[in-house]
Amino acid sequence: MQQKVLSSITEALRRTEARDGMTLSFHHHLRNGDYVLNLVMAAVKELGLKDMTINASSIFDCHLPLVDLIKDGTVTGLECNYLGALVGRSISAGILEKPVLFRTHGGRPADLERGSAHIDIAFIAAPTADTKGNISGKYGPSACGSLGYAFADARYADQVVAVTDNLLPYPLADFSISETEVNYVVEVDRIGDPAGIVSGTTRITRDPIGLLMADMAAEAIRASGLLKDGFSFQTGAGGASLAAAFALEKIMLQEGINGSFASGGITTQLVDMQKRGCFEALLDVQCFDLGAVESIRTNPQHKEISAGHYASPCAASAVVDSLDVVILGATEVDTSFNVNVHTNSQGLIMGGSGGHSDTAAGAKIAIIIAPLMRARLPLIVDRVRTISTPGDTVDMLVTQYGIAVNPRRADLADRLRQSRLNVISIEEQKEIAENICGRPKALKNEGRIVAEVCYRDGKIIDTIRQIN
Amino acid sequence: MQQKVLSSITEALRRTEARDGMTLSFHHHLRNGDYVLNLVMAAVKELGLKDMTINASSIFDCHLPLVDLIKDGTVTGLECNYLGALVGRSISAGILEKPVLFRTHGGRPADLERGSAHIDIAFIAAPTADTKGNISGKYGPSACGSLGYAFADARYADQVVAVTDNLLPYPLADFSISETEVNYVVEVDRIGDPAGIVSGTTRITRDPIGLLMADMAAEAIRASGLLKDGFSFQTGAGGASLAAAFALEKIMLQEGINGSFASGGITTQLVDMQKRGCFEALLDVQCFDLGAVESIRTNPQHKEISAGHYASPCAASAVVDSLDVVILGATEVDTSFNVNVHTNSQGLIMGGSGGHSDTAAGAKIAIIIAPLMRARLPLIVDRVRTISTPGDTVDMLVTQYGIAVNPRRADLADRLRQSRLNVISIEEQKEIAENICGRPKALKNEGRIVAEVCYRDGKIIDTIRQIN
Repeated sequence: MQQKVLSSITEALRRTEARDGMTLSFHHHLRNGDYVLNLVMAAVKELGLKDMTINASSIFDCHLPLVDLIKDGTVTGLECNYLGALVGRSISAGILEKPVLFRTHGGRPADLERGSAHIDIAFIAAPTADTKGNISGKYGPSACGSLGYAFADARYADQVVAVTDNLLPYPLADFSISETEVNYVVEVDRIGDPAGIVSGTTRITRDPIGLLMADMAAEAIRASGLLKDGFSFQTGAGGASLAAAFALEKIMLQEGINGSFASGGITTQLVDMQKRGCFEALLDVQCFDLGAVESIRTNPQHKEISAGHYASPCAASAVVDSLDVVILGATEVDTSFNVNVHTNSQGLIMGGSGGHSDTAAGAKIAIIIAPLMRARLPLIVDRVRTISTPGDTVDMLVTQYGIAVNPRRADLADRLRQSRLNVISIEEQKEIAENICGRPKALKNEGRIVAEVCYRDGKIIDTIRQIN
Repeated sequence: MQQKVLSSITEALRRTEARDGMTLSFHHHLRNGDYVLNLVMAAVKELGLKDMTINASSIFDCHLPLVDLIKDGTVTGLECNYLGALVGRSISAGILEKPVLFRTHGGRPADLERGSAHIDIAFIAAPTADTKGNISGKYGPSACGSLGYAFADARYADQVVAVTDNLLPYPLADFSISETEVNYVVEVDRIGDPAGIVSGTTRITRDPIGLLMADMAAEAIRASGLLKDGFSFQTGAGGASLAAAFALEKIMLQEGINGSFASGGITTQLVDMQKRGCFEALLDVQCFDLGAVESIRTNPQHKEISAGHYASPCAASAVVDSLDVVILGATEVDTSFNVNVHTNSQGLIMGGSGGHSDTAAGAKIAIIIAPLMRARLPLIVDRVRTISTPGDTVDMLVTQYGIAVNPRRADLADRLRQSRLNVISIEEQKEIAENICGRPKALKNEGRIVAEVCYRDGKIIDTIRQIN
């Protein structure tokens, strides 16, 4: 049996016979604290490799060095599910000739399974690994909890390199990804900056508009009829999402409702709700904060799931298919309920689907929460600049002015009205905003295509154009 | 999302479009208490399907109804890693035209990965399942603990049906096999007879010859130099194997040795050793008794592993590759140290490799323990009737007369002699037995081939012939 532990990332690139034109993959559980992508790509550049494609589940601002690697031809391809504003801005400016390929969190493992995506070498940031490559995210100085997004990389990549700052003797019994799929292990000083990996605390918004919308969303969920024993729920880590979860918790505890699960990215807020009996289980593809990391390590009802289990449309079934309600954000929504989370109001790349369109497609009710205006720009437009999530998978939009229900869901609008909630059409809400802010000029962008948005079924549903 | 829970096994056969000539798979964690194979095959017969191949990780005596299904043409192909004496006898008598294909526990998942084996429909006996097919073996009235052998079936079969007698609401958080791979779930009254699934207690042999050999084996392990911190170990559930583990435990506790892991089929004896600090972890592909089932449910250092993780030669690495010492049994050993565990002294099928050859190939030292004579038949022969495990992977043979060391391991023989252990060549031991029992007539069997023995690398290493 060959020795798996190698002395450096450069040695790993040599042993895996990395060469020009290959696709290297990365996962994003270390979030804005990740060192691994930059470490690997610095070694790639050092070796003089060119024309590499990066397939990363997400790119954060900490990956800014990528911009120079694109400019010098080290990297000529980028595939991701989310692309933060800092690198996104440069992509929007056209530094990459080939369009970025945006996928969804469920579409990424699905494309790997379908063979429409291929990874030559996966680099897995491993908060703990043993000498044979059994890996866990739950332990070590850079613990991030779930490694959900990395499972598909381990399974489908031709070769897999674990990069760890906590190398243990064999065997790591509580492994998440097993030695069967890991070819090499490299020990480095640090794989990430704990301050950027997970936030110590997550705070519910104090913004009165955020709190108002959160309460409305919770009341809408109550009115929907789904809020009963067995209820399942997902929301994000943003202040308004947390506030909505908090408002929901109050109702669930008051009414003694025992939900089945909360899924997706897990926060301390959801951990607390599980402990208090609001949910039987937490199905965790990514830990958003330290409370979630602690919980996944110790609570058997808090379970790590792979991205495929979370959301793959190729799976026999995925968690999102069993989801009752998801609460999501938006940068733009249009009158057909299409949602944009890829680009900002100027059309600059500053995000991506992540699990947005996966959960919207799976959940019985997908709720968008967003303020009707941001910096005097209306949320609702005639046609979103970028379709991230198709409107036929979105059920309602909650703003501080009321709840717009997708006309497809007349049943839901009736229920909301019966509960005396302020149902107000999306066109009316659009008008309110335009009466306050004026109607922004529709900018036609004729720039070349810098990104393609690939829906979870593998089809391109939109393109993003260059902005100079 | 389509409904996964079906009303009956017959309905599952219809929905999976089962038809003549297909391969159906089964796993053997319910051991001699398994009802599922018989239930499914009764439904197959009822539907009038013919020419089916069964790929089961093991066939036990409880599967005797298989004999009639073979005779009437319902089943015309059989692939397994182990075949108990009751069905084995009929196979040896020639009831099946096509030879049985014997694999090893590591070779089976490897052949599925290579594509040299293919499963149309996998039936997974599931002690607990939720309505979407998340499965665990740890809970329920038919709890069997690890589901290690079923992982490859779930992963590689075209379609997967979970058969359970403990159907729970979604989600089963502590799943072993996930809904992503399970197409249908069928609830039945009972999937097995607890009395046959696991034994309540496992007992160390009281046979003085067994105890003598166990002590010799433990002393040989001490003498080998491997018995130090980090030591890893595997043994079976037979009385002599348990006695050897017990003897080893005494030495390890006396000398304060902290081993790394014990692997394979796990018994209460190994659970106790882990608790007492002899091993850091238990890597469990199958629970042999109730103590092991209880432990895998509650002890995070007792971890379920897949058959591929346990022993696949296709894996980047497997547990057997890290194994220091394995203790194994034999029905015959020859002077080249080849071992037979497939056929008895008359050549009748009564077993199979299981993990025998996998662990022998992986472990630094593979020790065979067996009495020199059984019912006045010598253990050691010129040439085993069936090669299950090639002699070049076997390091020593312990009988009540002493320890024969494979000439390939002169280093080991030296160490044993230095420790004043009774090293005595295999030829000498053979002579001792023949002096007592006489030399049995070598029977040349010219019958047609009824089984092929496929080594873990996928190559046929021996054949078994018909006995009338």
